[in-house]
Amino acid sequence: MSKSPRVLVTNLPFAHINPRPLEILRDVGAEVVLNLLNRPLNEDEYAEMLGGFDYLLAGVEPVTGKVMDGEPNLKLIARIGIGIDNVDLLAARERGIPVTHTPDGPSPATAELTMALMLDIARGVGQADRAIRAQGWKKMVGVRLAESTVGVIGVGRIGKRVIRHLTGGFPGVRILANDIEPDEAFGEELAVEWTDKETIYKTCDFVTLHVPRTALTLGLISTKEFAMMKPTARLLNLARGGIIDEVALAHALRTGEITAAGIDVYGTEPYIGDLSSLENLTMTCHMAANTPDCRLAMESGAVAEVVRLIEGKPLGIPVAEIEYERAAGALK
Amino acid sequence: MSKSPRVLVTNLPFAHINPRPLEILRDVGAEVVLNLLNRPLNEDEYAEMLGGFDYLLAGVEPVTGKVMDGEPNLKLIARIGIGIDNVDLLAARERGIPVTHTPDGPSPATAELTMALMLDIARGVGQADRAIRAQGWKKMVGVRLAESTVGVIGVGRIGKRVIRHLTGGFPGVRILANDIEPDEAFGEELAVEWTDKETIYKTCDFVTLHVPRTALTLGLISTKEFAMMKPTARLLNLARGGIIDEVALAHALRTGEITAAGIDVYGTEPYIGDLSSLENLTMTCHMAANTPDCRLAMESGAVAEVVRLIEGKPLGIPVAEIEYERAAGALK
Repeated sequence: MSKSPRVLVTNLPFAHINPRPLEILRDVGAEVVLNLLNRPLNEDEYAEMLGGFDYLLAGVEPVTGKVMDGEPNLKLIARIGIGIDNVDLLAARERGIPVTHTPDGPSPATAELTMALMLDIARGVGQADRAIRAQGWKKMVGVRLAESTVGVIGVGRIGKRVIRHLTGGFPGVRILANDIEPDEAFGEELAVEWTDKETIYKTCDFVTLHVPRTALTLGLISTKEFAMMKPTARLLNLARGGIIDEVALAHALRTGEITAAGIDVYGTEPYIGDLSSLENLTMTCHMAANTPDCRLAMESGAVAEVVRLIEGKPLGIPVAEIEYERAAGALK
Repeated sequence: MSKSPRVLVTNLPFAHINPRPLEILRDVGAEVVLNLLNRPLNEDEYAEMLGGFDYLLAGVEPVTGKVMDGEPNLKLIARIGIGIDNVDLLAARERGIPVTHTPDGPSPATAELTMALMLDIARGVGQADRAIRAQGWKKMVGVRLAESTVGVIGVGRIGKRVIRHLTGGFPGVRILANDIEPDEAFGEELAVEWTDKETIYKTCDFVTLHVPRTALTLGLISTKEFAMMKPTARLLNLARGGIIDEVALAHALRTGEITAAGIDVYGTEPYIGDLSSLENLTMTCHMAANTPDCRLAMESGAVAEVVRLIEGKPLGIPVAEIEYERAAGALK
């Protein structure tokens, strides 16, 4: 009898809302080790857990060449989620380790949380809530989405869903959008105006980011971009930390260069820093995908890839070749 | 030359975002006195301001027979807003003082703030924001609106807009609704399932109230209704304070009888009380109508009625006769 396949899950929460993904792994005879901390592993903790695993179901901690060298039997790195910025793709390829992810899983929940933060900062909900809890009474004046111009940077799975929530739910809203490969048919159906990023920064009442973290998007929004925005502008990032320069964001919010922001992702997570003291900011804890349906889709998707390899089948959704090319370009 | 008409405005903020309503009153020669406090007037302050006014543009403070007796020249009570629960309609009629309101003005902004609070409590945005500000990290697990059943109690101007935001923006959502006079055509267009309140309490993931405060709706949601709701239910009130029993709400949230609530209106405002210490509650400060477009519509609507009377024309939107009948019924 062959040795049980060993699976390390560093992503969290895993099988927390629905135990099915864990049951599937156990049904195929896998031995599963979970990250039981309520946060991403740090480097030391990660190094300590490693050793003797065949499959890695990864969170957002860095999966480097060094990590891979510690796991000579590693047959797959499966990201539970869409972003693969934390996986060193070239190191994986050098070692012959395939990488997969679950690009569709998190989109619906992420688009809905984007709407939650957009409406929240449109009306100053967080500020009013904090005021009333401190025995104050702060009647905030806000704006309506149906009267606003929203700029969407990155119109992939999530950006498209955000645009559908807006145009379907808040008729009257005007959508400006930017993408490296605009989906013209989608744009036509929803009256999206494609334009450059600079026009979005200068024109929009809301700017929402739905791009991956790559060499091209790191620091995308910084001092120069804030200077272009209207003092009434509101900014959202539910994509990845690092796409907005956090020091520049804190300055822009503090000086009134923009009116408000809604942020779910940070350069370092859990986030501790200067932003937490600002009033005109609503912050969530990298939780955009956290609804039962989307967690289940993501976890089941990653688990299905493990099962496919155990059963000798090819991967269902290997990371696209263009991502390896981008990673190679970033090294230049 | 006749004496200038004198106008008292107790509603706030008045002409704060857009000065036009104040300019219109001054253009017709009116002398205008504003409430400059950042809150509704209390009884003493109100009594002190009264005396010698011809027109009252009223906020949410009680406009009683006693108030009217202090203003023998009063020719109109115009509510800036939709609710007329604070105006003693029968006392006004006895004294021959007409009452008007601006039922359309606040609806768009109120429906959007309802969506803001609904999405906020769907995902635990407030709890995550508070955690991160206390150097914590709380990855909340929430639900998607598109996967939820939403019960709308009161399907008038605002309830209808909420249903349109939901069905247009979050396809997949199921709408149950209750109204004393169901608009069958509207319901058919949007696949609304009309039902009784008890079914809504027992079935829905979200219950949102859009009824006026009347003798029939006061204390509508109390211990008995919370007991019918699912432990996963979430409750919203952006209508009027008093429709939910606040002691029963605090108990239901504290014991997990329901999951969360979003509240904009309170029995006494500014609100100070027990609810402010609860984590699973998002609170705003009676600010649902506070967007520039809706404030302007409300204020202009009320001002237009004053101008009509000054120019000897009939009122545009007198409070409907049925409201006087309801008020009479409430006295029985």
